[in-house]
Amino acid sequence: MNNPLPETVPTPFVLVDEQTLRNNIRRIHAYADRHGLAVRPHIKTHKSLRMARMQMEAGAVGIAVAKVGEAEVMARLGDADMTVAYPAVGTERAGRIARLARNRSVRVAADCEFHMEILAAAAETHGTEIGIHIMFDAGLHRCGVSDPAQMVRLARYARNRAGLRYDGVQMYLGHLYGPAAEAPESFERINRLWEPVYERLCDAGLQPEMVSSGSTPSLFNTHRVRHISEIRVGTALLNDYFILKFGHCTQDACAARLVATVVSDAVPGQVIIDAGAKALSAKQLLRHEQLELGYIPEHPEARIFRLHEEHGWVDVSRCPERPRVGDRLGIVPVNVALCMNLHDTWYLLSTTGDPETEKVDARGCVV
Amino acid sequence: MNNPLPETVPTPFVLVDEQTLRNNIRRIHAYADRHGLAVRPHIKTHKSLRMARMQMEAGAVGIAVAKVGEAEVMARLGDADMTVAYPAVGTERAGRIARLARNRSVRVAADCEFHMEILAAAAETHGTEIGIHIMFDAGLHRCGVSDPAQMVRLARYARNRAGLRYDGVQMYLGHLYGPAAEAPESFERINRLWEPVYERLCDAGLQPEMVSSGSTPSLFNTHRVRHISEIRVGTALLNDYFILKFGHCTQDACAARLVATVVSDAVPGQVIIDAGAKALSAKQLLRHEQLELGYIPEHPEARIFRLHEEHGWVDVSRCPERPRVGDRLGIVPVNVALCMNLHDTWYLLSTTGDPETEKVDARGCVV
Repeated sequence: MNNPLPETVPTPFVLVDEQTLRNNIRRIHAYADRHGLAVRPHIKTHKSLRMARMQMEAGAVGIAVAKVGEAEVMARLGDADMTVAYPAVGTERAGRIARLARNRSVRVAADCEFHMEILAAAAETHGTEIGIHIMFDAGLHRCGVSDPAQMVRLARYARNRAGLRYDGVQMYLGHLYGPAAEAPESFERINRLWEPVYERLCDAGLQPEMVSSGSTPSLFNTHRVRHISEIRVGTALLNDYFILKFGHCTQDACAARLVATVVSDAVPGQVIIDAGAKALSAKQLLRHEQLELGYIPEHPEARIFRLHEEHGWVDVSRCPERPRVGDRLGIVPVNVALCMNLHDTWYLLSTTGDPETEKVDARGCVV
Repeated sequence: MNNPLPETVPTPFVLVDEQTLRNNIRRIHAYADRHGLAVRPHIKTHKSLRMARMQMEAGAVGIAVAKVGEAEVMARLGDADMTVAYPAVGTERAGRIARLARNRSVRVAADCEFHMEILAAAAETHGTEIGIHIMFDAGLHRCGVSDPAQMVRLARYARNRAGLRYDGVQMYLGHLYGPAAEAPESFERINRLWEPVYERLCDAGLQPEMVSSGSTPSLFNTHRVRHISEIRVGTALLNDYFILKFGHCTQDACAARLVATVVSDAVPGQVIIDAGAKALSAKQLLRHEQLELGYIPEHPEARIFRLHEEHGWVDVSRCPERPRVGDRLGIVPVNVALCMNLHDTWYLLSTTGDPETEKVDARGCVV
């Protein structure tokens, strides 16, 4: 992002650099093409129809969402194939998913019969079918199972239950970041768990048509996990300070900034900006004993060390040129998805230079 | 909150118990009346016109906001007196404040001439005047000054500059929580800083008409600071886990819950709920080496130990009755203001039992 920060938009606001965004999309597809992987953008990161369209135009096979509300907003993309990559438990949710499934292929991640039964009932009520991705626990121990017999039992349920369609397996490599996201042993460990599961599924006539994997830090190593057919691409579209700090992207691949204004410099060595936890999110980054809540590329010596609701605290004591009241700062947020979700609008800094106003279309879709 | 959690509303959602809310309002006014303090609700906590109206009806003298957008939403309250208790630096903001000031008394917190000059220019352009509260730094070292000469200089600027109206002083006792919020020494220390400032202001003919103080942990000790005329009441209306955990309120004074559903129990001793950092906020509470991200009164042995964007991780290994997939849990959020701001709607659990749907009217007012 070499363009100057626009002065016309009141702060705080989210600015996305179009050129960086397009470079990131290109890099992801080049990787996926090289390894024969399909690309499925996870729109939870940006919640924007504009960005989703850019990703679809680049060759994505469909989209992933976490929330039913996001799926309903993204239905405006037309008949794009959808994965609700989340255990969307609940009768109300199931009904909404079933309604979406009447006009497009929709699947949902699941790790228990209780959940699948609700989805099946809703699909039957609405005269449609809902695809199922059984969640395989690759090591994060968040959702999913890794026992081969359990995986077979769940997959068989999805295959046999009326209203459901067994589509395959989903995994999430969220336990891999930092050196672990590059280390061959990490992927060998996953394969030692996953290969027996895959074989048992095949033996039972349940060979997964799709095996979808996600997580940005290990994204460009996904091919090391066997039988993966698709990558879900979330944060990697924009990147953020977590990804940068752990060495999983370069600074010129960070496409998003939260632009803030210095509103007080009354305390020596410190400035307060008009972006606190309600503009950046309260997400902290702890690395080498150092707590940070964002990164300011134009002032690399500055440290955002605390966020109150509306106040960002920045230690500028080591900055050769200290920002002053009224100055604007462009911040790489710790978690870009949490940051985007706090804003009704975002601004695309197009290659022609002017910021275009865009909506965060699926912001606040909590259900 | 003794009512059962409503089953009709899809999770996650914010539920506020009317009886608890009214009890909290009553307790705050009883304290304020006892000490001759005016009450000014800081609506940043709830961003709701409904709650603001309940507070105004209970005898509040006006409202406080952090953001100009919040002020514009709250203008629907009519001609209520408004404090923008935040250094609202910037030309665009100043113009919007000046427009609001044409129909009601509005003041803004400031700690530098640069900021006041922008406000004054906007007031002149719009043919109005904007009140100024000089920010006194009572020990938090966030904004404001504590040097008597500086305070006098800033107050004099506000008094003399055309377009501005010197209204007094604002302080924020955010550095006091836990035992420090009760300790007499804490308030003696503030008075040792503040008394000389107050005297110098009086000597200079700048006796502050209003001295406004805020911060929930020390709220019921505000009278120990001399010359305070008003309390700004934010979190204390609803309370949250931060306030509860540090002993500043009882559990029956926690008026708000984030209601979530268990969506996975695949990992033994743990459940995943459909409320992550996008429903609760990423705000952490660290106390006695224990990291927590919310509290579940109905399962006091449960611990919310991690929040991903849409996944809440709950350790239920110590629960005598473990919640299961599909169960609903009512969570006291760590920071209720950050939580409310993530939702378009909230639900009032009225004394008659049914949940009433309300808007988070000023949600996402980042500017």
